[in-house]
Amino acid sequence: MIDEVKDGVAPFGKPPRVVALSGGVGGAKLALGLARTLPGHELMVVANTADDFHHLGLRVSPDIDTLLYTLADLNNPDTGWGQRNETWSFMDALTTLRPDSRWFNLGDRDLATHLVRTAQLEQGVALSNVTRFLAEAFGITVQVVPMCDEPVATRVQVELDGEQVWLPFQEYFVKWKTEPPVARVDYVGAEYATVPAPVRTALAGEHLDAVVICPSNPYLSIDPILAVSGMRELIGNARAPVVAVSPLVAGRAIKGPTAKMMTEMGLSPDARRIAEHYGGIIDGFVLDNAAEGERRDIEAMGIKVILTNTIMKSLQDRIALAGTVLRFARALADA
Amino acid sequence: MIDEVKDGVAPFGKPPRVVALSGGVGGAKLALGLARTLPGHELMVVANTADDFHHLGLRVSPDIDTLLYTLADLNNPDTGWGQRNETWSFMDALTTLRPDSRWFNLGDRDLATHLVRTAQLEQGVALSNVTRFLAEAFGITVQVVPMCDEPVATRVQVELDGEQVWLPFQEYFVKWKTEPPVARVDYVGAEYATVPAPVRTALAGEHLDAVVICPSNPYLSIDPILAVSGMRELIGNARAPVVAVSPLVAGRAIKGPTAKMMTEMGLSPDARRIAEHYGGIIDGFVLDNAAEGERRDIEAMGIKVILTNTIMKSLQDRIALAGTVLRFARALADA
Repeated sequence: MIDEVKDGVAPFGKPPRVVALSGGVGGAKLALGLARTLPGHELMVVANTADDFHHLGLRVSPDIDTLLYTLADLNNPDTGWGQRNETWSFMDALTTLRPDSRWFNLGDRDLATHLVRTAQLEQGVALSNVTRFLAEAFGITVQVVPMCDEPVATRVQVELDGEQVWLPFQEYFVKWKTEPPVARVDYVGAEYATVPAPVRTALAGEHLDAVVICPSNPYLSIDPILAVSGMRELIGNARAPVVAVSPLVAGRAIKGPTAKMMTEMGLSPDARRIAEHYGGIIDGFVLDNAAEGERRDIEAMGIKVILTNTIMKSLQDRIALAGTVLRFARALADA
Repeated sequence: MIDEVKDGVAPFGKPPRVVALSGGVGGAKLALGLARTLPGHELMVVANTADDFHHLGLRVSPDIDTLLYTLADLNNPDTGWGQRNETWSFMDALTTLRPDSRWFNLGDRDLATHLVRTAQLEQGVALSNVTRFLAEAFGITVQVVPMCDEPVATRVQVELDGEQVWLPFQEYFVKWKTEPPVARVDYVGAEYATVPAPVRTALAGEHLDAVVICPSNPYLSIDPILAVSGMRELIGNARAPVVAVSPLVAGRAIKGPTAKMMTEMGLSPDARRIAEHYGGIIDGFVLDNAAEGERRDIEAMGIKVILTNTIMKSLQDRIALAGTVLRFARALADA
């Protein structure tokens, strides 16, 4: 199995021009827009892996899979996770054997991804190489790279029955459906994790045009990536502008618990707060038209702002936003 | 997970009255007949596990599964393996990722069994306990016990392109479809394996009425069980009669490569040869009506013989043969 996985830092011969940081659904939409805008070898998507976990002995990498399925046009747009045209015979049979395993859904087609990944990892192949193997098998030309090859685990401190307890991310997200109020989030192991060589090369590259922070949850999807030891410095030192796309539109996340979490953590759920959160590393901020009122406050932080439609309902929306982000980065570089 | 698996040697309070040794399809048919004839706690089925192997990181136990699915009335009568009403989305998706993994079919429902088994084994639960857990989940009251908890692997020496090579069993059976001529068979690890305590207790028990060798392949299914260190002696010393049912009808195996293998190994493919093979341990031999001509030769070995229909097409056939076998054992005990 190992001999099928190619090694080497830059499989396409040269480092990419655009590096995007992404979590799952929302980030993957913009990643797809970027993938349809740039030649495959010019784009690298760095995926959050701090939501990865083991379930029934399988290594599940939710954000990598959402990115792979989205980029391969296999994703299920209704659920936001898993594959289209999925079947559920496995879950049906599992219910007989282990009713307590039902809380996390594993589709029959999706299982093939998890089994192949798990088998390769158990043979000692790094997640980076497994991910490249899967991407190639799915016909994806964009580089999808995990934020690190070491295990990092997001955990969420929540209030349950009046007590503060730490929950592993998937328990918070899937089992508890993000209902318990969040006090804080951390990323166990991030300080021991290292930036994969291809990401390091790309971020340090002379030909880098842009670093894009996709509209993913800042606390659950982007911060774990930035927490990988050395990642924040590499992005801070990159020659290219760093542009973040706000995941909030008029005080609401398009999908997921971003706004709810911010409120629970005592933060006002607005784009301004997100821009401030990314303040140390971003040069530009892409704000939804509906949030125009926040523009001035963000610019007052020394961050350039553009307004556009950030709600990506159609493929055209994804491509349009990708184009806007890339032109914005170009303008920032030229300024 | 471990706390869900009950311990103890005799979960039903007393050891069984009938112990059956079985491989897959043919043996499972008689096991079902026995299960429909005896109260669940009176029957123990000892399953061949020397065909077990790892595939895509999963522990697959083909004969245990055929027994479980058959006893739970979930088996696929058309294929002889796997579950009825199976779906194949996983294999379909796997083909994209690993075309080289297609040679072994894993149905979507079947996968639940393999994942649960593998996860429990990885947590340190013994195969005996995992099997009991699965049997209970499937609502099976009969005890299904692996021949041992240690790994034992059947391998088959065959001629391939003019050379003698050893093939792991599944490669011979599934990948090569039993086509290459067999020179010999062995069971790697059997000498280090031990008889599970419940099987030992049952075979040594005072209330044992019969040991039944099911009509499975003697070389691929029954011999590995007998090869487990101490098993042959326990059966030889059992107070109850040992009765084997011939897997051959008029020189042909009802299913599988028994007759073909015998011919390749220089043995005439007839019931006489099978009776001789089991000669040291059996008291009685159940011969198909069509093989009446071999009766005298077998009786000349000092083995009692009865003739009956051994072809089990219907559930009634299975129950009828089970009844005949049990009455035969009773008669042998009374003689």
